Amino acid sequence: MLEYSTLAAVDLGSNSFRLQVARVVGKQIYPLDSLREMVRLAAGLTADKRLDEDSQARALDCLKRFGERLRGFPPHSVRAVGTNTLRVAKNGSAFLKKAEAALGFPIEVIAGREEARLIYLGVAHSLPASTSNRLVMDIGGGSTEFIIGRRLKPVKLESLYMGCVSYSLLFFPDGKITKGAMKRAELAARSEVQAIAAEFSSTHWQDAFGSSGTARALGEIIELNNLDASGSDGDITPEGLDNFRDYLLRAGDIKKLEIAGLRTDRAPVIPGGFAIMSAAFSELGIRRMSQAMGALRQGVLYDLLGRFHNQDMREMTVRQFMQRYRVDSAQARRVETSALLLGTQLLTAFPDDMEEMLQSLSWAARLHEVGISVAHSGYHKHSAYILGNADMPGFSRMEQERLSLLTLAHRGLIGKVRGVVVEPLDFALLFALRLATLFHRSRCDIELPQLNVRMDNTEFELITEQGWLQRNPLTDTALSAEIEEWATLGFNFRIKERLEGNMGCKTVRSTIGV
Amino acid sequence: MLEYSTLAAVDLGSNSFRLQVARVVGKQIYPLDSLREMVRLAAGLTADKRLDEDSQARALDCLKRFGERLRGFPPHSVRAVGTNTLRVAKNGSAFLKKAEAALGFPIEVIAGREEARLIYLGVAHSLPASTSNRLVMDIGGGSTEFIIGRRLKPVKLESLYMGCVSYSLLFFPDGKITKGAMKRAELAARSEVQAIAAEFSSTHWQDAFGSSGTARALGEIIELNNLDASGSDGDITPEGLDNFRDYLLRAGDIKKLEIAGLRTDRAPVIPGGFAIMSAAFSELGIRRMSQAMGALRQGVLYDLLGRFHNQDMREMTVRQFMQRYRVDSAQARRVETSALLLGTQLLTAFPDDMEEMLQSLSWAARLHEVGISVAHSGYHKHSAYILGNADMPGFSRMEQERLSLLTLAHRGLIGKVRGVVVEPLDFALLFALRLATLFHRSRCDIELPQLNVRMDNTEFELITEQGWLQRNPLTDTALSAEIEEWATLGFNFRIKERLEGNMGCKTVRSTIGV
Repeated sequence: MLEYSTLAAVDLGSNSFRLQVARVVGKQIYPLDSLREMVRLAAGLTADKRLDEDSQARALDCLKRFGERLRGFPPHSVRAVGTNTLRVAKNGSAFLKKAEAALGFPIEVIAGREEARLIYLGVAHSLPASTSNRLVMDIGGGSTEFIIGRRLKPVKLESLYMGCVSYSLLFFPDGKITKGAMKRAELAARSEVQAIAAEFSSTHWQDAFGSSGTARALGEIIELNNLDASGSDGDITPEGLDNFRDYLLRAGDIKKLEIAGLRTDRAPVIPGGFAIMSAAFSELGIRRMSQAMGALRQGVLYDLLGRFHNQDMREMTVRQFMQRYRVDSAQARRVETSALLLGTQLLTAFPDDMEEMLQSLSWAARLHEVGISVAHSGYHKHSAYILGNADMPGFSRMEQERLSLLTLAHRGLIGKVRGVVVEPLDFALLFALRLATLFHRSRCDIELPQLNVRMDNTEFELITEQGWLQRNPLTDTALSAEIEEWATLGFNFRIKERLEGNMGCKTVRSTIGV
Repeated sequence: MLEYSTLAAVDLGSNSFRLQVARVVGKQIYPLDSLREMVRLAAGLTADKRLDEDSQARALDCLKRFGERLRGFPPHSVRAVGTNTLRVAKNGSAFLKKAEAALGFPIEVIAGREEARLIYLGVAHSLPASTSNRLVMDIGGGSTEFIIGRRLKPVKLESLYMGCVSYSLLFFPDGKITKGAMKRAELAARSEVQAIAAEFSSTHWQDAFGSSGTARALGEIIELNNLDASGSDGDITPEGLDNFRDYLLRAGDIKKLEIAGLRTDRAPVIPGGFAIMSAAFSELGIRRMSQAMGALRQGVLYDLLGRFHNQDMREMTVRQFMQRYRVDSAQARRVETSALLLGTQLLTAFPDDMEEMLQSLSWAARLHEVGISVAHSGYHKHSAYILGNADMPGFSRMEQERLSLLTLAHRGLIGKVRGVVVEPLDFALLFALRLATLFHRSRCDIELPQLNVRMDNTEFELITEQGWLQRNPLTDTALSAEIEEWATLGFNFRIKERLEGNMGCKTVRSTIGV
């Protein structure tokens, strides 16, 4: 993989969108430039969980500006990630197409725990070296992430479905901050936090850090207004929170909030953010929370940098999954080798996409049997379920969906991909994976003849040695069935034999007959 | 659990239905009486996988006769199981209702690997003691089971989707036995067997046994007609199979088959059965296969007997799953204890069903978090997926479906059970499980007050100590949400407090207000 001296991360958060450009020196990242816009995407979610036109327009305008800044960046030097609002929006994928066009780069929607992992990666790089266990809490617009980690390694990750935007809208819809509303908001947040309290309470860590805008605002408000008599030094403390709650209730309305440290664009989401922070303090037993500088976008940059240094988290996840689900590694290797052999030939005409596609193919080959751990019968469905739903550190949702689809369709009726696979190259991967598993059905080391494959629009061609099919009647039968399967998708799959004595090739099997 | 001196097993196979009545002496089973009818259910499957009227009528008539023989047997002394045709028939559950009415006992549809486990249990009890590894092969009407086992313990289990009825219909639809048709049938079967050949080939066992009607017929035909020149002694041998293939092709038609050892009711399904046997011989390298006497029905009886001797395979499976999926056993115990406490009170009015229902509740409580192994977010869905799809030795499909449903609905919106739960008592189990998990959300050992619950049609009542709700505002909030959830299903869930000084109870929360 190439290495770049400048990298960029885009964070399409539920509250704000951020762009971070950084310079790479060795294995460190130095910020060059950053942009931030309060898009407040979560506020644009309608009751039936669709992004409304206004918020889409705000988002696209912002992404166009970010795209302008990123013009000329090579494809792999930019990584854009979307979080909770894009996870839940029902029209999310339609919006993403427009968003990617505006930005000029692909956008990945990441799962809550993947977000937590990246946040920790960003925060950990910004904190001084220490061997103590750290709690990091990040209150986003639509979700809140909790991580316990040590040095650069996250130990526990959790993502809860509550954020400063969504809670402010839910409990303070008209902007009024009443005692009853605040009590309901805090109770709801405590109820969420309670579910993870056993694992994240203060007995499990020494220092707590807040990494979001909410934490920064609360810390500044407490410090600048002396809300903690014993001095808070920018930290958040229980006394400071109690006094700020009093202030909020006295003010009684978002529009009347005017206190040092609270920016006007933060005011509309501070009651919800406060309720979440206060709930975490009481349920987890936090006595003091310091500010951490890094956040999701820094984590994305460090993760991207790791991929150039053979520390691709996705590789580690694939290896871990093979162990956890007791994959037969000899069979995985056989299938992977053949799949890559075929895939490489099919993709020669697409050098730009080749590396990424072959990486997906390798992962799919190594993971296509994870579902056997659930049950032998219909294991491809179980593999697809696991790969589509599991927490897979480093993987985006789309990457997981591709793995899920490839494993689902790697055997049996191929019609199930109709309407789901849209990228033509995904058919190449599927073809390579199906053939590789077909050749290795016997699960022992066999010698394959020289195989040549070609893909051309809706045609596949496989060239093998003369007589090989005849000597292997089971493979022959299976390949004939395979020809019929591809025909159901409108593909013509043709098998040729290389005639002995350099006499050219002869079609021996084909959708439309020989 | 009570113990019975007479037990009965009913096997609703794809080819024949069988009833076996047996006497129990100690831990051994002695056959008393058996009935067998060639219902040939698999032949009644239409192209779109529905049981036609004729086959349903044949089946119901047969079950009525079996039911007559079983009149007076206590409920837990009879176990009826259905296999492949009932697994795949789309109108299977509608048919099962009628079938259960005809038989007078519940009928469980079991998965292929569960069928294999029970077959081995039956066969192993019929074979002389030996420490060698045994291959057992059972060609059914719609599926074929392969088992490698040692003594009474199955080591590897597999069920392939091919049977003597389905293959005879598929490859010899008009009864003609041509060379081409036989070749296609054998290749198709070899292709199926190939997938398991690495695990089941002759290097993995010392002795091979056939346990089905097909095996018995083939063994007798070879012996009685001297199809193996070196003498077969009732065993199946490669030479014997080759000679029988020649005979089949010479005869050329099912209607013309007339050979010693082949009963006329076996003839229609012998070409398919032969192809499967021949494929297993060549793909697994079998040199000789002996006859085994036991079969599915004997296995069902031994399994039933085990349940009375605290060797319930389902208990072992639950314990194994808790380990495999790393369930937090302390939390499982907390939830189980509270769920059983509530469940016992709710079910007092149903003494007949109580034991079975509480057993299900205990399993659900211990397994409701298996899905966390896939991902934290939405883990109840993953639990439901695993419990609905995994191979769970000892469990019937219906039992797995109940576990799947209970875990799916144990938290979150309860509306998802609408139209799925039909048994009123399942609501009681769900209520107990939801409340138990709600009380133990903090995942630490807490002391609960005395809780009394009652169920009455569409009403639930929970009586707690005065002031307990006030002292536990999170539980209070969660219970209020719970009241609203049950209201969506039309239940009135009322919470009362026991007033101090023996002053009776007072309703403090209720669907319809206090």
